[in-house]
Order: sequence, then structure tokens, then C-alpha cells
Amino acid sequence: MKPVNDLLLRVARGEEVERPPVWLMRQAGRILPQYRAIRESLSDFKVLVETPALAAEVTVQPVDELGVDAAILFSDILVIPQAMGLPYEMAEKRGPWFPDTIRSASDIAALLEGEEAAARLPFVYEAIRQTNAALSGRVPLIGFAGAPWTLLAYMVEGQGSKTFTKAKQMLFPEPALAHHLLEKITSSVIAYLKLKIEAGVHLVQLFDSWAGLLGPEAYRTFALPYIRQICEAIPEVPVTVFAKGAWFALEDFAALPCQVIGLDWTMDPAQSRSRVGERPALQGNLDPCVLFSNEEEIARQTRQMLDDFGPGHIANLGHGVYPDTPLENVRCFVNTVKNYRYGG
Amino acid sequence: MKPVNDLLLRVARGEEVERPPVWLMRQAGRILPQYRAIRESLSDFKVLVETPALAAEVTVQPVDELGVDAAILFSDILVIPQAMGLPYEMAEKRGPWFPDTIRSASDIAALLEGEEAAARLPFVYEAIRQTNAALSGRVPLIGFAGAPWTLLAYMVEGQGSKTFTKAKQMLFPEPALAHHLLEKITSSVIAYLKLKIEAGVHLVQLFDSWAGLLGPEAYRTFALPYIRQICEAIPEVPVTVFAKGAWFALEDFAALPCQVIGLDWTMDPAQSRSRVGERPALQGNLDPCVLFSNEEEIARQTRQMLDDFGPGHIANLGHGVYPDTPLENVRCFVNTVKNYRYGG
Repeated sequence: MKPVNDLLLRVARGEEVERPPVWLMRQAGRILPQYRAIRESLSDFKVLVETPALAAEVTVQPVDELGVDAAILFSDILVIPQAMGLPYEMAEKRGPWFPDTIRSASDIAALLEGEEAAARLPFVYEAIRQTNAALSGRVPLIGFAGAPWTLLAYMVEGQGSKTFTKAKQMLFPEPALAHHLLEKITSSVIAYLKLKIEAGVHLVQLFDSWAGLLGPEAYRTFALPYIRQICEAIPEVPVTVFAKGAWFALEDFAALPCQVIGLDWTMDPAQSRSRVGERPALQGNLDPCVLFSNEEEIARQTRQMLDDFGPGHIANLGHGVYPDTPLENVRCFVNTVKNYRYGG
Repeated sequence: MKPVNDLLLRVARGEEVERPPVWLMRQAGRILPQYRAIRESLSDFKVLVETPALAAEVTVQPVDELGVDAAILFSDILVIPQAMGLPYEMAEKRGPWFPDTIRSASDIAALLEGEEAAARLPFVYEAIRQTNAALSGRVPLIGFAGAPWTLLAYMVEGQGSKTFTKAKQMLFPEPALAHHLLEKITSSVIAYLKLKIEAGVHLVQLFDSWAGLLGPEAYRTFALPYIRQICEAIPEVPVTVFAKGAWFALEDFAALPCQVIGLDWTMDPAQSRSRVGERPALQGNLDPCVLFSNEEEIARQTRQMLDDFGPGHIANLGHGVYPDTPLENVRCFVNTVKNYRYGG
């Protein structure tokens, strides 16, 4: 079903629009009291991820509450390792972690991949169907997945880390192991995204959250080729690539068959546009900390960003919105974008 | 006293050399068994920082053991907040933290600054004198300080953080408070570096470890002007600016009166040189994870880096060496540089 408000998809396809669409990374989350009420009633974060009715409910909340131009399915990038046979747990303060990690060729050999892995996530596809029913075509629904390098990083390291030393140690000097794992992750992500699209998402976003831990040569060896494979395998809907900290790879992303590049807040809008050329569309990139400021300053910096990007832009933050951001300030950001007009 | 091996200083001054000098950030530390032996005999990390004979001993260790071309005084960037009246503690796994943090104008008013603060660190100046006595002029001695934004980040946040949200909240919407704190930090850092130079350091390096948490506009407002003040106040010795993650500010650093720019491992050597022009010298930037590889790969990537930078380069890693790096691999990195010849 084609959404009524299709601003996001029109910008992704390179069409002209009257104003930029706006949504926020992590908009379905702790910034909303409705989300916190549901979350607090549950023993475990994963119950929310794995119960379609609940995932659908929190996905729709920011559309109802904030009037954003897109919904993004509530989920976690770590469902893919889990589907491959490496379950994760979510600890309240510590964040995600893996009781078992990938250490050897036999660990990798034991992992499922491709359609066999993707088939183990029926709760995601059902959540998509329920979300679209609840949205009844108001806005497009975004589905996401972790990029292969970022998923490898978690699967090898076992948890978040400032340096991901264990994961990076797998890259040198015997890269064959890493490439084998990256291939299995890639085939799983592709099959997963195909099923998400079949279930009804209108655009998919890849999160390469740990891109900035690799230098340019390592990124071009261990991350980009797999992102390219995914982009090439997904002609059905627009693809957004958001690789945090990979400022050096912007020209590489522009050469991918992707429709949108997500930018973190260290990227200058005008400079990024000139590095990329006319296409693809750019998404981002206000510093999420600006939303701790007052409404005047938020509106000023938001309008400045919109001016600097110009057309071909999807308004967002340069990172997920921080959970303790005042809701009124998020609303101010969204409304500033919605009241903006190109050439106005 | 002019050091016998003055390669580092000649490159910093823009003179021709036969090969790049080499040292490693965090070379005085856990990679050395001699360091670990001393550290394990002490109850607290701060005893090592605050006891001149011990600080001098661990500073000289990597010169004896690895044959690096410079020593860097063992210390901590957080001695400055402590001297200003905000003591820190070092927890074994958690890292540094502050029992009290800066919250208000009156907290800032209560801080010492400038010479009055710097005078409270006699153990640092004494460690410099003892280090130079032990080095007897073999290699130059580097002194360092935290850059003002990074010190503010710790003083307001109270500890390390992925996002430093509290610190960034001080920047908007009432920047006057942040600027007042940054001014007091800056005057303290300048007075501190003056006393370090008087005591005998041959070059000073500023660490802006949390530079990448700010976007370009915020960095140019809250970080760069204070780094400039420090560079302008220190004509006596060369100054190195190392701002991790501030890839967007490379041209700004090149316009400072500094002699060396440190680069993290995400910066392409040849591209960085072309952005900067002929001067200043560049320092860095091998990914520290490469040192977990084998000797063949370490030598290959090190030589590649030296080729890519060309002259006007100080060989180093793009980040502090990780504590669990095999010593033989560090030695391989150092020796690869020492066996390299320009035009050879």
C-alpha cells in the first residue's frame, strides 16, 4: 500500500518536494511516556522486540504523538546474530551482550545463514503487518538491519566496547575467517530484508554503527563490499546507508546503488552535498545534544541545517535521540521542519 | 639541554631528516613488563603520577626497552582539574571519575586558575627534571596537557561517557557558563605548560580526546579558539595538536601557530597532507589494532603508511597503544620505522 504521506519516498527517489520529510532515529523509544509505560510493564527488552503487537504499538506511537513523516519498526539489529544461532541478551545498564561469541572457524561453520536464518524471525514480519494495519497508510514504514561489519563486531567482541579490539583482531592477519563470517551475515541480512519488504516496509536502512572504528583501507576491505552486496540485492525499495564515523567513505557510499546516505553530526551539510554530487539524498544530521537547548536555539539550528542541506534532504538527527531529551524539544524540532518550505 | 637524537624536533621545525622519528602514544604503560611490575606494587595509579621518581622511571622505560625517538612524561590530563580544585580518582576498570562535578557558575567561580593552579603540580616539574637526568640527553622529552574542551567534558560529566551528554548540555543554550570555564581551564593549561617547559620538556602535545563529540560549528565555537590561545602563548617549543575524531577541522589546525598535527587512524595520509599543505608536520596514524597482527603484516602496513605520508612525518599510532599489545609487535613497528629511509 502506498502511504498517503510519501514525502520520504519521494525524496529517496529524487523527486521534488515542498519541504523535507522528518523523522528521528530512536523515535520509538524512551523519549515517549507511552513507550516507557509499556517498557516498565515488561521484564525484558526482548519481550518488546519479539511480541508483534507490542512492537507495532511502540512503532506507531511517535507518528501519533509527534506527527513525524515516517515510522521505523521497533526492533534490534542483534536479531540477526540471534537468528544465525548466536542469541543476545539485553542488560539494563550494560547494554546488549552475547553469552557465547565467535572465536573460530568451527563457530562460524555452526551458524545458520541466508533464508534459513531469516525464517527464524517471524515476529518481525508479523510486527510489520500489524504496524501497517495500525498506520492505515498514513506514513511509510522503515525497516532496518545492522551492516555486516557492525554485526561481526558484536558477535566477536560479545558486547559494546570503546575499541572493539577483539573484533578488529579477527581482521588481521588472517582475514579469511572474517570474510567468511561477513559473507554469512550478509546473506542473512539480505534474506531478512527481502522478507521485511514482502511484509510491507517501504524503505530499509542499514546501520553501520561501528564504521568509525575502521580506517579507510580496512573499511573498504571489510565493510563496504558487503554493504554493496546488500544494496545490489535490494532493488525493490530505497536503501539508506548510515555509517557512523565513516566520514572518509562518503564518496564510496555515493557510488553505491543506494538512494539515501545518512550523516552523523560531524558532517558539514553543504560540504557533504558537494562531495556526493546531486544524488543520492542525504539524511541527518543535527547534533542530538542541541535538543537539550531551548526552543529558540533548536529552531535556529534546525533551520540553519535545512538551509545548508537544501533539497534532496531527509531531516533527522546525526545519531539516535537521547532517551532523556525533553519531549517538547523533540516536538519543536519536528515542527520546525514541517513549517519549513523550500524557496520560502 | 639539546638532545643527541633530535629527529623529532627537526621534523617539528620543518627540517629535512633521513627517516621519520617514531614514538607511541601510551608507550609508558602496560605494554611494558617493567611498568606493570611497578604499577602492581602500588595501591593507586595516582601514586605513580604524583611520585616524581616513579613517573620518571616509567617515562624512561620505553626509551631503554624499545629505542623510541622520544620520551613522553608519564602523567594524566586530569592533573589540571585537580590543580584547579576538582580532584579526580582512578578506578581500576571504570577509569577516571570525579567525586564532585561542575554544575553552576558558583562551582566555576570556586576554581583556581592560571599560575595559581599550575603551582599546585610541583611533582610534575620535578618528574621532568628527574627524567631528563635519567635520559642524559638521549632523546627529547614530550610534555602533554588535555585540551580545554576535553577537560571541561570530564569536569562536567564527572567520568568517561560514550556521549558526554551532560557536558554538551552546558554548551547550549547558555554558552557563557561554558566559555567562562573554558577560559579558566585555558589559563591553567598555559601556565602549566610554561612551567613544564621551564622544567625541561622539548615539545608539548595537546590531547583533545573528545573532539569528535562536537560537530564542526560547536568545535569552532567551544574548542578551537582555546587551542589557538594555547598555541599562541607557547612560542618556546613546538606544539602538537591531536584532536581525535575532528577530521573536519584539519584545515583549521593547519592555520594554527602549531608545528605538528596528530592524526587518528581514520585519516588518509596523502589526503591529509594535501588538505594541510607543506606544513605543519603530521604525526600518526597506524590503527593500533594492526599491532595485534603478525610481524610481516605490521611491517607491510607501517611501510605503506611511511610511503603515504612522505617527509614531514612523525611515525606513531592513530591512538594510544592498547595495553595488551604483544611487546614483540610494538618492537617490530618501531624497528620498521627506524630501518626506513626517505628516497631509499
